Amino acid sequence: MKKEVKKVVLAYSGGLDTSVILKWLQDEYNCEVVTFTADIGQGEEVEPARAKALSLGIKPENIFIEDLREEFVKDYVFPMFRANAIYEGEYLLGTSIARPLIAKRQVEIAHLTGADGVSHGATGKGNDQVRFEMGYLGKDSTLTIIAPWREWDLNSREKLLAYAETHGIKIEKKGKKSPYSMDANLLHISYEGGILEDPNAEPEDSMWLWTTKPEDAPDTPEYIEIGYKNGDPVSLNGEELSPATMLATLNKLAGKHGIGRVDIVENRFVGMKSRGCYETPGGTIMLKAHRAIESITLDREEAHLKDELMPKYAKLIYNGFWFAPEREMLQAAIDKTQENVEGSVRLKLYKGNITVVGRSSESSLFNPEYCTFEEDAVYDQKDAAGFIKLNALRFIIEGKARKK
Amino acid sequence: MKKEVKKVVLAYSGGLDTSVILKWLQDEYNCEVVTFTADIGQGEEVEPARAKALSLGIKPENIFIEDLREEFVKDYVFPMFRANAIYEGEYLLGTSIARPLIAKRQVEIAHLTGADGVSHGATGKGNDQVRFEMGYLGKDSTLTIIAPWREWDLNSREKLLAYAETHGIKIEKKGKKSPYSMDANLLHISYEGGILEDPNAEPEDSMWLWTTKPEDAPDTPEYIEIGYKNGDPVSLNGEELSPATMLATLNKLAGKHGIGRVDIVENRFVGMKSRGCYETPGGTIMLKAHRAIESITLDREEAHLKDELMPKYAKLIYNGFWFAPEREMLQAAIDKTQENVEGSVRLKLYKGNITVVGRSSESSLFNPEYCTFEEDAVYDQKDAAGFIKLNALRFIIEGKARKK
Amino acid sequence: MKKEVKKVVLAYSGGLDTSVILKWLQDEYNCEVVTFTADIGQGEEVEPARAKALSLGIKPENIFIEDLREEFVKDYVFPMFRANAIYEGEYLLGTSIARPLIAKRQVEIAHLTGADGVSHGATGKGNDQVRFEMGYLGKDSTLTIIAPWREWDLNSREKLLAYAETHGIKIEKKGKKSPYSMDANLLHISYEGGILEDPNAEPEDSMWLWTTKPEDAPDTPEYIEIGYKNGDPVSLNGEELSPATMLATLNKLAGKHGIGRVDIVENRFVGMKSRGCYETPGGTIMLKAHRAIESITLDREEAHLKDELMPKYAKLIYNGFWFAPEREMLQAAIDKTQENVEGSVRLKLYKGNITVVGRSSESSLFNPEYCTFEEDAVYDQKDAAGFIKLNALRFIIEGKARKK
Amino acid sequence: MKKEVKKVVLAYSGGLDTSVILKWLQDEYNCEVVTFTADIGQGEEVEPARAKALSLGIKPENIFIEDLREEFVKDYVFPMFRANAIYEGEYLLGTSIARPLIAKRQVEIAHLTGADGVSHGATGKGNDQVRFEMGYLGKDSTLTIIAPWREWDLNSREKLLAYAETHGIKIEKKGKKSPYSMDANLLHISYEGGILEDPNAEPEDSMWLWTTKPEDAPDTPEYIEIGYKNGDPVSLNGEELSPATMLATLNKLAGKHGIGRVDIVENRFVGMKSRGCYETPGGTIMLKAHRAIESITLDREEAHLKDELMPKYAKLIYNGFWFAPEREMLQAAIDKTQENVEGSVRLKLYKGNITVVGRSSESSLFNPEYCTFEEDAVYDQKDAAGFIKLNALRFIIEGKARKK
Repeated sequence: MKKEVKKVVLAYSGGLDTSVILKWLQDEYNCEVVTFTADIGQGEEVEPARAKALSLGIKPENIFIEDLREEFVKDYVFPMFRANAIYEGEYLLGTSIARPLIAKRQVEIAHLTGADGVSHGATGKGNDQVRFEMGYLGKDSTLTIIAPWREWDLNSREKLLAYAETHGIKIEKKGKKSPYSMDANLLHISYEGGILEDPNAEPEDSMWLWTTKPEDAPDTPEYIEIGYKNGDPVSLNGEELSPATMLATLNKLAGKHGIGRVDIVENRFVGMKSRGCYETPGGTIMLKAHRAIESITLDREEAHLKDELMPKYAKLIYNGFWFAPEREMLQAAIDKTQENVEGSVRLKLYKGNITVVGRSSESSLFNPEYCTFEEDAVYDQKDAAGFIKLNALRFIIEGKARKK
Repeated sequence: MKKEVKKVVLAYSGGLDTSVILKWLQDEYNCEVVTFTADIGQGEEVEPARAKALSLGIKPENIFIEDLREEFVKDYVFPMFRANAIYEGEYLLGTSIARPLIAKRQVEIAHLTGADGVSHGATGKGNDQVRFEMGYLGKDSTLTIIAPWREWDLNSREKLLAYAETHGIKIEKKGKKSPYSMDANLLHISYEGGILEDPNAEPEDSMWLWTTKPEDAPDTPEYIEIGYKNGDPVSLNGEELSPATMLATLNKLAGKHGIGRVDIVENRFVGMKSRGCYETPGGTIMLKAHRAIESITLDREEAHLKDELMPKYAKLIYNGFWFAPEREMLQAAIDKTQENVEGSVRLKLYKGNITVVGRSSESSLFNPEYCTFEEDAVYDQKDAAGFIKLNALRFIIEGKARKK
Repeated sequence: MKKEVKKVVLAYSGGLDTSVILKWLQDEYNCEVVTFTADIGQGEEVEPARAKALSLGIKPENIFIEDLREEFVKDYVFPMFRANAIYEGEYLLGTSIARPLIAKRQVEIAHLTGADGVSHGATGKGNDQVRFEMGYLGKDSTLTIIAPWREWDLNSREKLLAYAETHGIKIEKKGKKSPYSMDANLLHISYEGGILEDPNAEPEDSMWLWTTKPEDAPDTPEYIEIGYKNGDPVSLNGEELSPATMLATLNKLAGKHGIGRVDIVENRFVGMKSRGCYETPGGTIMLKAHRAIESITLDREEAHLKDELMPKYAKLIYNGFWFAPEREMLQAAIDKTQENVEGSVRLKLYKGNITVVGRSSESSLFNPEYCTFEEDAVYDQKDAAGFIKLNALRFIIEGKARKK
Repeated sequence: MKKEVKKVVLAYSGGLDTSVILKWLQDEYNCEVVTFTADIGQGEEVEPARAKALSLGIKPENIFIEDLREEFVKDYVFPMFRANAIYEGEYLLGTSIARPLIAKRQVEIAHLTGADGVSHGATGKGNDQVRFEMGYLGKDSTLTIIAPWREWDLNSREKLLAYAETHGIKIEKKGKKSPYSMDANLLHISYEGGILEDPNAEPEDSMWLWTTKPEDAPDTPEYIEIGYKNGDPVSLNGEELSPATMLATLNKLAGKHGIGRVDIVENRFVGMKSRGCYETPGGTIMLKAHRAIESITLDREEAHLKDELMPKYAKLIYNGFWFAPEREMLQAAIDKTQENVEGSVRLKLYKGNITVVGRSSESSLFNPEYCTFEEDAVYDQKDAAGFIKLNALRFIIEGKARKK
């Protein structure tokens, strides 16, 4: 009954779970395993994964370790932020946006190595299995997909540890195991499980790893200035930064000031509600700053149409449809609006707060003289009467017709 | 050329501007003036408007002073918050939502007093003229509308003061005149003009009237708990509160903790961009808390559809279409979803931050057992494979058909 | 491995397929079978299903035969037509709208009879399995669902006939078996399969059962008049008709004049494209007439918002989400708009064409004097200048700011 | 009070109305007039406008007569049909789509000739004034706009004729004057006024000029085949045709078979409802054919998103916002989907009916083997169970949580 597969590209972190999967694939499928470990800014060294993989019998030429940070931010994070994407009013899609890149690269490595299968370590109740597999199926549906968490019976930490022990997988003992299930990349770190399973319980201070508790953040605000071009942040305090460096630097700044924590109950694509906590420090700044630079450079109706389309766009990313044609269709619309989204935004960071304190642009559409109650070059106040009258005409007619 | 009008109901604050209008109406239109002064929580006494009106020759029976705070919050603010309405990602629509109520009441008073005209003090470049007049025209289009700011030539503060002096209107000298144009009601206070005309300038600390500067807010967080029923907040820390009391109390709490400041450049309905600063302390809490209670009680697709419709709904309110059938149509959809939005949300207030730290509900759809990677009563992990496969089927078919 | 089930309510037509399912359920699941046969206007007698069921060993008290025609039209078809629902620009959702009613009634009968399972005869690649089962799961998810077509290996007509023969199921020989897979109810009849599998092939004339070929339809047009109330058709040529009688009568009229044929390639919810031909004679008239009565009674923005929401609404029905809260949410919005949708529409039927030749209503918002270029009571042509100017203001400002 | 203007570019048809305007501009504004007459397929000779203009004192170098038919169809009509645009479910936007091109060209001619004003002959209650002036203001807001119908008092045909007589404007007597107000271009001809002002009155047969009455159309159907590339029709019955020739040819074919008549009450942008009849023969075929070719080549969700965005897109064109950034934003999304919309559609034309009888494409995503109930290469029927189960999971959970 088991699918036949000769060579499988595994998304491999080097940690316990994917090491067990590696071994399990070798044993259960009797197949060659290719490991793929990507640095997408998760904040852990990726090189140790090489020794780990070698120790589990992976051939050197089957070990792929790559730094994808710039590609991740430039081609995935930035386009998403052009849309001001937020899922369910709160979540900045930190995990969702990273999976398609990993999946795409796995398929490419499968083609390079002649593999006929791909595998990942996402569980059977979560969104990530969908995001990985939508990526695989969208790129090459002939590859066999192996999702061990849906197949095996190692459905508890104890069984996993037992399996590791039995099969000679070394378990690092780096202090106490976190009670949370976590995922990190340059955009965010997420927490699930543990006491979070009670939506009425506040997370412990110790859970948050990337941001200072607002109470402990500096008592003095810090001002920063972000430069924008074509809707993307390109400079910080006057210095040009590459996409990944930009995000890494903003993460540090925001983290220091306690910015970017989110604690929500969200709706998974597979149907249930789940509690998640997220730290997206740099991303939280980027969202605020992007809206600010758009506020002076974007046409009103472009801005409103973006706002109307955003929930659908965010949902597509959340659900794993990054490579879907409808996401690309929306991206085409969004990108079309960003041509003049350029200039500079000044922000104040203080104990969890981001305040926009200034925006300026060569392409600004703001002009104070049009707003005051005095006369100006473009606006005749008499026009307002006709404008209102015709906007209300359908009410006037209805009032007359129905004598209400 | 001037319209003929015999009796005009004026939205009268008792301040300089509307006092000048009152006089100007009497002189220019040679008409009787009915003053209408509403307490919608702007934080100023309304009774003094009576003496002021009398002193300007208004007959006692033509002076209407009413406390509309409960109606305002119950029938306007709360329905709007059911929709999680935000305009352009930032603005909680504090001014927009108050105008229709005033306009509606002016029309009713016109009918009571046999007046044939209505008048307001909104300027000719702003949104408020539209909101007032859409209200008038929607309720009774036979009334003559007089918008003095679009008619007269008193287009500067100096001319206004001169007019007041010439016509014997007493000018209160309550200290220095604010450099900002302000509007307040129970939901918010707004600031425009002055140095805000430079979008690159940070407002002075002294501008903000309702909220403590985060830096000066208490160093100790405060926890509160809001009870919800049918999507509306009904109790605070266990105590049932009327709508207006709820909002007033939340304003005080949030104000103390520096919560609810917004500083934006927004797009006016009449076509230009304008800079506005807003304090919406209680409303900011209400938005956060409402999303939190919805997060455990609302069905996913209801929630998403609400998010997709919200920008249009917010725009309707911003543009003055509160009484329009399309707003009522959207409201019917929104209200339909709120039947089970009930329960309790705990929040932490601290120096500008609102953090949701707990939510619970008898109607909760959250169940932790469905989220973990273990087995449960409703979810078979094998189902995920079929779910993903059929969601991706169109990509699989396209891949085969187009050999990409 | 097989699910345990003691008593199953089967959606039973009395035809070959569901008779084989009946027998197969008895044999494979060793369970009692309750048959449910509904008259939803499919145009075949339902009583013969009783004898058929009895002959297959079903107890008399386990045989349910019901006439659901009025409920079907009143509570399912009419609400859907209030929305002007069309799927993918062409399909009037004839099959989609009938499934939820059957599913709901099956669950009710399960409760009445103490059954613990439900079953249907929809195949494993189609939309109907989804529509049935979404209904079951939405109404009572504890019932075991048996979908024989996904379980057994009788995946061809030959195997089915062999099974029938082996198990003593009488096969009616009413002439040649149709080469098409068909489904019918009061709203429509559908055709799939056979030569339709080639999207480049025109269906044979003989396929169409309900409508005259336009070429053979009467050479003389026929005029009819439909009366509307609250958005629903209530009278025909002055005579009040019940919902089901209305639809049946319109079917006859339209069928006679060759109206209501559709031939499309559509996108199934389960992921592939399929070719379908449909006859919806009365429904085609109802759509045209409803839009016509709305054209004079609905506010513009209500109408436009309905048009924007319609594709989502139609998709929900197509995909089987009739009982979903988001469908009910949209229905609340739609129904809110229909209060004044009343009056009368005259139509001309001729060889496949429906032409609206008149509409009138006590609630009409149309008034010819507002449209001409002459003066009228509500419209001052001077207003148009201000209206245009402020609508264009953002372009004017952009032109000045960016010197384009 | 009158605006100062030295040279005005007038959209000039050569007919009575615009000839009166021409003269009136000379007299009232004492300005030089530049006439611009475009052939956009209205079906009348444009050269006679030259003699007419000369006779009214226009300098030869101030007379512009241009054939814009190819530009009109290629850059305006075709992009619009890629969107399947229909306004209010019925109207194919024939007039709306032509105005922006005329307006744009007028502004260009103003720049060429150093003119400082533009003028048009649209009335003060209609949509066309908006469409013209939005175009002018979007392209160059410094030009003075003169809309004679909103300024003068020649608000009846009698006064117009009297003015013409007084000022020596020759009135062609080509038989009886039509009782309808008409507008024509290569896409359509429209009728307003006359007996159409009664929405309950059927238009006389004699009104329709471009299409045969269905009753009088040929008794034999005609089959045609249209080839598509990138979403645009490029060939007819195997012969490649230029855009304008394509549309002209389809007009002739459809007209012959009585196809393309529409009779509606529509909602004008300026606020009232108006009755309009339209003939869009070729466009009606193009809409049907485009949907058919999309049905086999477009991804499902692309198609659905297009359908959801379409009403907004159509409204933008109807309201005169062709050059607005939000229309361009939507166009970017639409055009992105048309890359593979290619292949061939066969249609049957008969007495008012268009029936799609075949579609084929190298890029087809349709494959009959995926639809049948048999096994195939991409679809495992077992997957459907998981697909349905997880799609219904939120109902299952709600059922359990709320015991409904």
